[in-house]
Amino acid sequence: MFKTIEWKNNNVVMIDQRLLPNEEVYRTYKDFPGVAEAIRKMVVRGAPAIGVAAAMGIALGASGIKAKGRKEFAGKFERICKLMAATRPTAVNLFWAIKRMKGVVKGNPKLAPDELKEKLVQEAKKIHVEDIEINKQMGKFGSRLIKNRATVLTHCNAGALATAGYGTALGVIRAAIEDGKKVKVFADETRPFLQGSRLTAWELMKDGIDTTLITDNMAGYMMKKELIDLVIVGADRIAANGDVANKIGTYSVAVLAREHKIPFYVAAPISTIDLSIKHGDKIPIEERDRKEVTHIKNIPIAPDRIKVKNPAFDVTPHKLVTAIVTERGIARKPFEKSLKKLAVSPPVINNEK
Amino acid sequence: MFKTIEWKNNNVVMIDQRLLPNEEVYRTYKDFPGVAEAIRKMVVRGAPAIGVAAAMGIALGASGIKAKGRKEFAGKFERICKLMAATRPTAVNLFWAIKRMKGVVKGNPKLAPDELKEKLVQEAKKIHVEDIEINKQMGKFGSRLIKNRATVLTHCNAGALATAGYGTALGVIRAAIEDGKKVKVFADETRPFLQGSRLTAWELMKDGIDTTLITDNMAGYMMKKELIDLVIVGADRIAANGDVANKIGTYSVAVLAREHKIPFYVAAPISTIDLSIKHGDKIPIEERDRKEVTHIKNIPIAPDRIKVKNPAFDVTPHKLVTAIVTERGIARKPFEKSLKKLAVSPPVINNEK
Repeated sequence: MFKTIEWKNNNVVMIDQRLLPNEEVYRTYKDFPGVAEAIRKMVVRGAPAIGVAAAMGIALGASGIKAKGRKEFAGKFERICKLMAATRPTAVNLFWAIKRMKGVVKGNPKLAPDELKEKLVQEAKKIHVEDIEINKQMGKFGSRLIKNRATVLTHCNAGALATAGYGTALGVIRAAIEDGKKVKVFADETRPFLQGSRLTAWELMKDGIDTTLITDNMAGYMMKKELIDLVIVGADRIAANGDVANKIGTYSVAVLAREHKIPFYVAAPISTIDLSIKHGDKIPIEERDRKEVTHIKNIPIAPDRIKVKNPAFDVTPHKLVTAIVTERGIARKPFEKSLKKLAVSPPVINNEK
Repeated sequence: MFKTIEWKNNNVVMIDQRLLPNEEVYRTYKDFPGVAEAIRKMVVRGAPAIGVAAAMGIALGASGIKAKGRKEFAGKFERICKLMAATRPTAVNLFWAIKRMKGVVKGNPKLAPDELKEKLVQEAKKIHVEDIEINKQMGKFGSRLIKNRATVLTHCNAGALATAGYGTALGVIRAAIEDGKKVKVFADETRPFLQGSRLTAWELMKDGIDTTLITDNMAGYMMKKELIDLVIVGADRIAANGDVANKIGTYSVAVLAREHKIPFYVAAPISTIDLSIKHGDKIPIEERDRKEVTHIKNIPIAPDRIKVKNPAFDVTPHKLVTAIVTERGIARKPFEKSLKKLAVSPPVINNEK
């Protein structure tokens, strides 16, 4: 089995997701700028995985700080956090991870730089381990939503490759299968970066899960043919009202799901919920390079100077979301209440059937 | 300016649409099998252009028939028509063109093979010339639907490249611009064959029309941002009730248009209307090669043995269609009545504003 991201011999090792599925290449990052660049260039992607990578990148950066005392250390540490925060704007897990790493420094006011460095590495490793546990727990809750012999449509990759392992949306599918259910998956290819065809198809096939690849614009047709029983996707940020920012195209899938009376589920860790943002409209949407649209693997597929839009995410209004699966239970409408309750409460078992 | 298809020195010359926009290559076809293969392999595509190509291919085939008398000629001619009918199943213009060519043989029972051959070439050329006139007439009607400073979303390519010239949906846009209106276009890239990014973007840029390329899954986002005023697409076959078969993804765009209260127009010649088919469900949908989805320009973008669906078309139910623009006027609901009226009547001027 592959590992999305790993702390190894004081380096960060990541599978290069840009090269999948054709090549399985692991890259070793020895310093902070390397990890920041890997996030920006999407060597690693997926909100939870970005969070883990950010934490590990900051731990690497902190380890390399040369400082005479705590004050100098804290200043340089702040600078590293700021640079990390500038890598990608939409996934809130990035900012959540930075906050957690900052908390280590703030929460240990007596520790000297060398001790802090050690603590920061421990924290990054902890975030990594926790993320897998969170996904497994999310899977336990989410599995209840998937009936035996269901066919599930997913968009983008919210799998082991988008997390420390197991996955959010794909973790729910894995859990349903582990619970003995037969599940088929339809994967949208997810232009322009092709996370569906390159990543979701690859990791589900590795697990022997029955997966059919379609282009994004075929989802409506498959729903109309009654081939889809439910939709489940991940999230990059969830506003307090339940509006969900996720990979571009998610919104269209949600509109189509409602048109066909198909439930639309979102699976995401509590760290993806941003209670500071009331509505999805306030979530910053990253615009990425035009070349993602005009080229595939450096080969042009559009005229040279054509104008291009490339928003990397869209926002699905909460009214289109049936439920949100988290590691602390399943949130239903009204999401203002249910999300807040889950966000502030310790892990609890939700009794929903 | 380019020519999509042309009868030249008793050969058929076509621009190879598979190579656009990177290369502008014209291919010369000297016989019937070559043209049939060109239709199958999508050297030429787009319902009206397929109709013209089929007619020219049959004319070529007829010219090559060696027959002692009319009876032998007719038998061989039938065989050619049958082979042509098997090239692609969805676009009804193919069958319409075959029927017209058959009509030449049937309608001239006294003519000898050599005279029939000449008549068939004339008929194919006539279909070609008429198609351009039809598009211009369609543009005159359709232009009324486009306001000054409108932004139009289109899917696939219903342009000069999909017809003998000028285009159906893009013809309407061209006519609006010729009428002095400012029009901006958003073009869906249209996976898997990329007719939007490769063909629509290319031909609109050639005309200096303000065009922005997006991936198919961005259309919903653009509508939500209120960047789209109307949608206009072509059609491969229209059932008697107004259900529209068109390039895969059209249905999703239509659902999204209704969600955002954006008018959804279809532009197609009368030859695209198939009154023999009551509902869209009865329209045969072509499934194409998996490689169109798993590869782009022979480069793999998905795991080797992944399951794939590749329906080339979908059906948009008439309830999602605001109006259908033809060369004889604009049909509105109920389409059963309006389409029938247009289909059986001679060209008339529609007084709609």
